[in-house]
Amino acid sequence: LSPRALGLWLGALPAGKLNDLTDVPGVTVGHVSLIRGQGPLVPGQGPVRTGVTAVLPHSGNLYRRPCRAAVFVFNGFGKSIGVPYIRETGLINAPILLTNTLSVNDVANGVIDYLLRQNAKIGNNARTPDIVVFECDDSYLNDIRGRHVKPWDAVLAIKRAAAGPVAQGNVGAGVGMSCFQLKGGIGSASRLITGKNGRRFVLGMLVLANFGLQEDLLVNGVPVGRLLPAEASGSYVPGSLISIGITDAPLSSRQLEKLAERTVLGQARTGSLSRPGSGDFALLVSTASLSECESVSDWELDGYYQAVAETTAESIWNAIFLAETMVGRDGHLRRALPLGETLTVIRNWAGGLANGAP
Amino acid sequence: LSPRALGLWLGALPAGKLNDLTDVPGVTVGHVSLIRGQGPLVPGQGPVRTGVTAVLPHSGNLYRRPCRAAVFVFNGFGKSIGVPYIRETGLINAPILLTNTLSVNDVANGVIDYLLRQNAKIGNNARTPDIVVFECDDSYLNDIRGRHVKPWDAVLAIKRAAAGPVAQGNVGAGVGMSCFQLKGGIGSASRLITGKNGRRFVLGMLVLANFGLQEDLLVNGVPVGRLLPAEASGSYVPGSLISIGITDAPLSSRQLEKLAERTVLGQARTGSLSRPGSGDFALLVSTASLSECESVSDWELDGYYQAVAETTAESIWNAIFLAETMVGRDGHLRRALPLGETLTVIRNWAGGLANGAP
Amino acid sequence: LSPRALGLWLGALPAGKLNDLTDVPGVTVGHVSLIRGQGPLVPGQGPVRTGVTAVLPHSGNLYRRPCRAAVFVFNGFGKSIGVPYIRETGLINAPILLTNTLSVNDVANGVIDYLLRQNAKIGNNARTPDIVVFECDDSYLNDIRGRHVKPWDAVLAIKRAAAGPVAQGNVGAGVGMSCFQLKGGIGSASRLITGKNGRRFVLGMLVLANFGLQEDLLVNGVPVGRLLPAEASGSYVPGSLISIGITDAPLSSRQLEKLAERTVLGQARTGSLSRPGSGDFALLVSTASLSECESVSDWELDGYYQAVAETTAESIWNAIFLAETMVGRDGHLRRALPLGETLTVIRNWAGGLANGAP
Amino acid sequence: LSPRALGLWLGALPAGKLNDLTDVPGVTVGHVSLIRGQGPLVPGQGPVRTGVTAVLPHSGNLYRRPCRAAVFVFNGFGKSIGVPYIRETGLINAPILLTNTLSVNDVANGVIDYLLRQNAKIGNNARTPDIVVFECDDSYLNDIRGRHVKPWDAVLAIKRAAAGPVAQGNVGAGVGMSCFQLKGGIGSASRLITGKNGRRFVLGMLVLANFGLQEDLLVNGVPVGRLLPAEASGSYVPGSLISIGITDAPLSSRQLEKLAERTVLGQARTGSLSRPGSGDFALLVSTASLSECESVSDWELDGYYQAVAETTAESIWNAIFLAETMVGRDGHLRRALPLGETLTVIRNWAGGLANGAP
Repeated sequence: LSPRALGLWLGALPAGKLNDLTDVPGVTVGHVSLIRGQGPLVPGQGPVRTGVTAVLPHSGNLYRRPCRAAVFVFNGFGKSIGVPYIRETGLINAPILLTNTLSVNDVANGVIDYLLRQNAKIGNNARTPDIVVFECDDSYLNDIRGRHVKPWDAVLAIKRAAAGPVAQGNVGAGVGMSCFQLKGGIGSASRLITGKNGRRFVLGMLVLANFGLQEDLLVNGVPVGRLLPAEASGSYVPGSLISIGITDAPLSSRQLEKLAERTVLGQARTGSLSRPGSGDFALLVSTASLSECESVSDWELDGYYQAVAETTAESIWNAIFLAETMVGRDGHLRRALPLGETLTVIRNWAGGLANGAP
Repeated sequence: LSPRALGLWLGALPAGKLNDLTDVPGVTVGHVSLIRGQGPLVPGQGPVRTGVTAVLPHSGNLYRRPCRAAVFVFNGFGKSIGVPYIRETGLINAPILLTNTLSVNDVANGVIDYLLRQNAKIGNNARTPDIVVFECDDSYLNDIRGRHVKPWDAVLAIKRAAAGPVAQGNVGAGVGMSCFQLKGGIGSASRLITGKNGRRFVLGMLVLANFGLQEDLLVNGVPVGRLLPAEASGSYVPGSLISIGITDAPLSSRQLEKLAERTVLGQARTGSLSRPGSGDFALLVSTASLSECESVSDWELDGYYQAVAETTAESIWNAIFLAETMVGRDGHLRRALPLGETLTVIRNWAGGLANGAP
Repeated sequence: LSPRALGLWLGALPAGKLNDLTDVPGVTVGHVSLIRGQGPLVPGQGPVRTGVTAVLPHSGNLYRRPCRAAVFVFNGFGKSIGVPYIRETGLINAPILLTNTLSVNDVANGVIDYLLRQNAKIGNNARTPDIVVFECDDSYLNDIRGRHVKPWDAVLAIKRAAAGPVAQGNVGAGVGMSCFQLKGGIGSASRLITGKNGRRFVLGMLVLANFGLQEDLLVNGVPVGRLLPAEASGSYVPGSLISIGITDAPLSSRQLEKLAERTVLGQARTGSLSRPGSGDFALLVSTASLSECESVSDWELDGYYQAVAETTAESIWNAIFLAETMVGRDGHLRRALPLGETLTVIRNWAGGLANGAP
Repeated sequence: LSPRALGLWLGALPAGKLNDLTDVPGVTVGHVSLIRGQGPLVPGQGPVRTGVTAVLPHSGNLYRRPCRAAVFVFNGFGKSIGVPYIRETGLINAPILLTNTLSVNDVANGVIDYLLRQNAKIGNNARTPDIVVFECDDSYLNDIRGRHVKPWDAVLAIKRAAAGPVAQGNVGAGVGMSCFQLKGGIGSASRLITGKNGRRFVLGMLVLANFGLQEDLLVNGVPVGRLLPAEASGSYVPGSLISIGITDAPLSSRQLEKLAERTVLGQARTGSLSRPGSGDFALLVSTASLSECESVSDWELDGYYQAVAETTAESIWNAIFLAETMVGRDGHLRRALPLGETLTVIRNWAGGLANGAP
């Protein structure tokens, strides 16, 4: 169950209908999950605990009809690709893919396959697209050396991309991810924002959550990670956080960059310290037509900032509340967050007044 | 009373002896508070609700013996000066001053007076120093047009700089500041970090807190601002957050920049959205000798990141818990945070499970 | 005489009518030159060889009618103020001032005086403006410790601001500046750009040139500095380069940042190495109305890039070709570039084929 | 023949023994050139005009013994990978590869193959490396859609890497590249720098030059591109410039970033406007041991700046002087720079005084 379903407070703004990224009109998400084998690691064979997730801002031809976009790198300890072009042009002109660190290039090759097929002029008399693949390291559970995600898996994820609801937890790129030494993965959330003239916009977020020590975990400010029994099963492997936010509001790339920066506010609420070794990348995209003049004043961005902070935090909590216990290579175990104990801990905490320091 | 004195949980790391910036050996802080007059605003006359605060990383000649330093600007909507030079050189070679927005240049002139007197060669056969003055806008309470802080007030703040404890709340540059539409100002905190070989270091933080809507305020994750009665007295004026962190650990300027970025993690825990109009600047300084080779691996930075997140949050909470109600120009009122109600709200909250959404 | 008047080739694009910054409609420039006394340095008394220059993008109320703008800092070893706000907002809302390093704050106070008088609401119920003052170090010739530029000099420069032609060389902020160990100062140039639909735009540049060793100087690729006799008179003091570009084309702040970056291409052609100690700041401004949707595609920026490269180089050469020999404090001497010898050297060079390596 | 061999002046600093990147002790370079077929483009079959180049800062295990490094992106219109990690850590821990835009991921996969084989612990109980592949678009001559560079070509280039002299022009990644609408490709140069205490260091540069219109080309300030007859054969395709600089001086990553920025000074001297569509990336690496404390003061960087400016310019000129005419797909032709006419043009120019404006 999600923290929202459990009754926790998750911010002041109203969530969208599905409370996920696909609440943004036209946005689709597709997952390919690869789970095969068990037992000791045999590089190249498995066990396989990985996957790929595709996010499409619209279902048209992204190469021909790019979207305004911005990236913010809070912690650059990552190997995601496609960042400098977005910074330079303020545009994204390819599907957005997420996968494991060593499969970035196979996934990128899948996207190239897809785009070359879709656009015969690329590399002939038209410019090459900017391939965007984000990654986290799932090697604690997965045979990452085996590079089991293949180009056709990326193409399949793109083809599977559909309107919501978005599957969350151990799915797609999230299959093998860990968060706070618990099971992590994919999470998503959305918020509705009312513009100055009453026009309503949606902001949706999708995260790949794969970071942190158990002791870091905060839920609504409660040091849940410290109050739960130490998770004996899993050693810490530095991980990363990828945040993909999309809105239908006509924001400029300069404004989208400000939104991307605010993902840090949400990640902080979950207790993230953005530890060494973490690649914390945020991509923000607007689906508004490029021909529409950016019409939102900087002074109206407050609502978007709040939506980004709230959805980033809720998406991360969703990822760990909705993930399930998984055993991976070499018997490595990542437990699901124990929901009952977590609620008890939250109920009894009272800012430390009732419960004492952990 | 500070939140710590009231029994709230403020993080896992041990605080320094005084739990403020002056726990870092050699660091001194000086305030000049200017409070004069009441009633309607007469620009140039008052009422005056402002001041200046000086922070000295060491008590020697900073121009001749500079410190490694880094700046991170999360929200650039501010008029602080001295930033590009620190970025370029990784050094700070002047005292650090804080004041109101329109007094930055008078304070800077005071620092120039002080440094020219101290160093006869400047501008003769030696380079000019980089003057560093940070600012927030206190115009809701203060006659900011009157520019009541004079160069000699800056010099006086430098001369008054002393070892701790640091006065907090309505003092120095914090006299006229507002935070979450309540009374804000100066706050400080510190943490002890144990390095790999058992060597102990201190990280101290001092903030000038002047930002946010009441509805933004989180204390330990509890939406206190929404649960307290609406503060009828004060309209919102966009403000800023200045965070000054100092450590005695021998970090490089590249590493100090990473620490400066983590102030955002602390500010986020207090509910900050870094709204439009906020100038959120963080300066991090190391007092270790320049001749000491930087010896801390990036992989050991975790403790510092945690210390920065915890001290930034606690410093902001200290600023509002320790500030007192103030009436300023035109009868503008900023109330102190009501501590009793705040504790009750926190005690009863339980993540929204007990209390319902605000 | 300017290099253009002497017959040198200065690029392929057509220059504007006056070939200076005031070719951009509405732009005005004002100088106050302070030249007093001679002989040994007596700090506070003189000799005075300094000044202040004001550049106004339009003659209306800049605080109420700001312009799109961007800053690029190639070398941050400078103490100019107002940079972070322009980066955050993409706007400039105050006149642009240039002066010496230690007079930045007096000049800033003059701008504040001017803006407070012009706008009664500032600091009352309206936000504070972002004061923008750029600086170079003229201490080789000038009693910089004396801070002889006063707030009223800044106001006077603003009031004197007029349409062209722009006085160049030893004037305004350029009075005491050195370039390539020769006399430097103010230089300016402009270019005409034809947009896609035949619409014509102007790009004007004004520099404050105060950098470099004689041996660095290139004119049209000829190592003039190495081929001229060593300039016995002047020791090297690290200096800076300030470049102010303005265009009437409706560019976004994101695009203006790209233009600001291209000033480096022009500075490089003059032989600049952007040596340690140099503060190389470029500000680019568009005078097009904020309500006009940015309508220039990134693919049309070529012409602007070329205009920026050509005008930056020509402005720097203008500064040194038009400056005159000056004696400053302690008999410090900066000679004017010897024009006759320079032309001979250029005529005979032939890429080193005729003349041998210097 | 190189411009140096032809007698042109190429800067004041002494070149290294080979005047190329391999003058830096321990640095090796390997090329794989792929040239197959002719006639009309049949995507997937050819004609093939492409390749891959490997640069190894040292011949040890780069994953276990990384080097200090920095990247500067002057124009982000490129799809090179590995940038954010270098920025975050100041390190490079993999061989440096260059290839065409659509082959980046196959080359990256080759590097992963190589590193996984060399380091059994990667992805098992050790972190993943940061794969660094730079690219330019060679689609004017090459069947870029065919992605003819395979992972094993990347491994082969790494294995072929050897001490100098470096093959230049139409070789490795440079096979299909164009520069100033002429034939471009690989170029290299080096300079010797004498440190404060007489210790001697080398700085070597290698470029992949694939940018610019013929009319942009400057050689020693002479507008050669405008003075040569218009090159009828080739239409303009926006391209890029990759600059790889390596030094044995013990510079910090912060200092290497300043060097990386100065590549722009060299590129500017060749007439580059860094036009829209150009991905201008510079990587600077120090081979000094990580355990050696950075010991070069910022004030001593002048020599390195000059070396970077001179070697970047000379490398680009080398690329076009040493490249040979090539016919590619669909009969597309890129001519070699006509050396005789070029020398005549330079000899007669005299800054435009003798020759008139072009």
